[in-house]
Amino acid sequence: MKQKIIFTPGPSQLYFTVEDHIRKAFRDGIPSLSHRSKTFEEIFIRATAGLRSLLGIPEHFHIVFTASATEIWERCIQNLVAEQSAHYVNGAFGKRFFETAGQLGKKAEAITASDDEGFTTQQTHDSAELIALTHNETSTGVSLPMAFINGFRETNPQALIAVDAVSSLPYPEFDFTKIDSLFFSVQKGFGLPAGLGVWIVNTRCLERAEQIKSKGALIGTYHNLPSLVSYARKNQTPETPNVLGIYLLAMVVEDMLRRGIKAIRNETEYKAAILYQALEANRFIKPFVRKTEWRSKTVVVADCGTYTKSLTEYLMQKGIQPGEGYGSYHAMQLRFANFPAHSKEQVELLVDLLQNFEP
Amino acid sequence: MKQKIIFTPGPSQLYFTVEDHIRKAFRDGIPSLSHRSKTFEEIFIRATAGLRSLLGIPEHFHIVFTASATEIWERCIQNLVAEQSAHYVNGAFGKRFFETAGQLGKKAEAITASDDEGFTTQQTHDSAELIALTHNETSTGVSLPMAFINGFRETNPQALIAVDAVSSLPYPEFDFTKIDSLFFSVQKGFGLPAGLGVWIVNTRCLERAEQIKSKGALIGTYHNLPSLVSYARKNQTPETPNVLGIYLLAMVVEDMLRRGIKAIRNETEYKAAILYQALEANRFIKPFVRKTEWRSKTVVVADCGTYTKSLTEYLMQKGIQPGEGYGSYHAMQLRFANFPAHSKEQVELLVDLLQNFEP
Repeated sequence: MKQKIIFTPGPSQLYFTVEDHIRKAFRDGIPSLSHRSKTFEEIFIRATAGLRSLLGIPEHFHIVFTASATEIWERCIQNLVAEQSAHYVNGAFGKRFFETAGQLGKKAEAITASDDEGFTTQQTHDSAELIALTHNETSTGVSLPMAFINGFRETNPQALIAVDAVSSLPYPEFDFTKIDSLFFSVQKGFGLPAGLGVWIVNTRCLERAEQIKSKGALIGTYHNLPSLVSYARKNQTPETPNVLGIYLLAMVVEDMLRRGIKAIRNETEYKAAILYQALEANRFIKPFVRKTEWRSKTVVVADCGTYTKSLTEYLMQKGIQPGEGYGSYHAMQLRFANFPAHSKEQVELLVDLLQNFEP
Repeated sequence: MKQKIIFTPGPSQLYFTVEDHIRKAFRDGIPSLSHRSKTFEEIFIRATAGLRSLLGIPEHFHIVFTASATEIWERCIQNLVAEQSAHYVNGAFGKRFFETAGQLGKKAEAITASDDEGFTTQQTHDSAELIALTHNETSTGVSLPMAFINGFRETNPQALIAVDAVSSLPYPEFDFTKIDSLFFSVQKGFGLPAGLGVWIVNTRCLERAEQIKSKGALIGTYHNLPSLVSYARKNQTPETPNVLGIYLLAMVVEDMLRRGIKAIRNETEYKAAILYQALEANRFIKPFVRKTEWRSKTVVVADCGTYTKSLTEYLMQKGIQPGEGYGSYHAMQLRFANFPAHSKEQVELLVDLLQNFEP
């Protein structure tokens, strides 16, 4: 049976080298490997050094592993917020980050925008210890411009800036002098099986967690930030982690480094451009996000209205699996991931089909 | 290169069908599967129904997934203890469960025994909301007799009984009328790649979590017990989980059901018997746990004293990877896992080598 091309925004299409890496992992006994062994430490080093190189992560940032980005929302609030956080919310995932803070008993403020829009100005949040931003709203395909994210350092110098880049990395190039915490999960842009979150934090974050802890507040147990960082310094994790997931991340990041991050970024932009062009060209569908500056390059959302079902069936017949619209948009939208695992040829095929679609 | 037989107590030897299952998983697109799809729900059902059947888990117990057993320590304390817990500690892992409660601000009491011993009596803990027991201490190879575990229901009827069975399941047969919470991780007795914890809880646990929450105390966010159970009722998880891990668990549990839990239990006892016999027979080494009623059937620990290094080298030359002694026992002990993935033939080979070892 011919395999479908998976355009769901995560879990998504696997990076094309993953199956080979997993075969080698079994040959080399990686799944039976002790997470306290030298070999595991070498894998940890390859994964983190590779990510540093790929994403330009500076020395004073630590890279730690969790089970998911959902877990990072919780750990982020527990460790970086004693009392108050501010959340920019324009979709389901930004909203869940906001709600996480409430569930943990923090005074959380939400600054909201329409689902198909980003924000225009950085407000000042005098009491917020953390400002939470969702770089790429997976539910709506809205992406915040980098200049907007970078503006918070000046308007809110006292706050830590935490950026959810779950469905955009490795595409975006962040300015690490303007943010303090960045995170993603591997089943999206990295094209890996789900079950691993990656949390990148600077020394300010670590100091904040230690400060909160020293005042007697609870910051969690095995996955509190000081514990995570102290094990990361030994190239280990506090618990037995998803060893195979960390191994596969190391391997795929090295593949991406060989391909070159510039090539990946250029290709992402080319594929996004032809995808939006196809949505503009077909009179039955249109891009959900109207303003081009807010259009995500990595999750392209189409308003398909009453044609949603017929377009889905048409694409499925051609071997293409689109992502369903999120939540209340289920019946009227489709989402198309545009990750490094999606080849130019695959996206061009999708584009041809979208252009030629007639209900 | 011939692969070693892995006797480390976890991550350990893979169950012999895992590699085939992973190959099929890739053919069927499991790693790209949405965790909100019908296909994922079917996998969830196969994993949980299989476990129910294999371990005899009654209807009023829920089965939920976490990233690790370490995570379950945290979730267990957060959700089941408002103020006070009692922990039976006779090794490193029972100690970490106890320390987790302290890190979460609970009044935790430790009842301690020597590392090579279990406990003789169930004390009464009037104020403890939870009694934490480690069925099989992975660090020392001490296992608590089932009658001891079952005695707590009568001596402490008000308390929830939580049992860590990380390195013993699926071997032991628990009486689910005598316990409330049971958990394990898959990289030990189930012979799977690490990155998944399984938490089995009854309705009393769920009610306790809801009660604690209703009083305004914090029970966590996405992985609080009501949230985990509410998703499990839909055969889903709150977050994108380790989909491949849950799939592999479903497949291996079905393999184990075909083999039969009785056969697995009988084989485990046979292999444990010949392993202890080999340790008794060789005059240079001896079992660490002296009293037979406390000797683990699934993690056999050998006191090797000054011969630890030479025995390790001798076994490694023969293609056998023993587990190192834990923590301070590193230089004088070896641990041998005896899991369903370890065939009779493999254990017999190990036994021959142990009997014939001369420094």
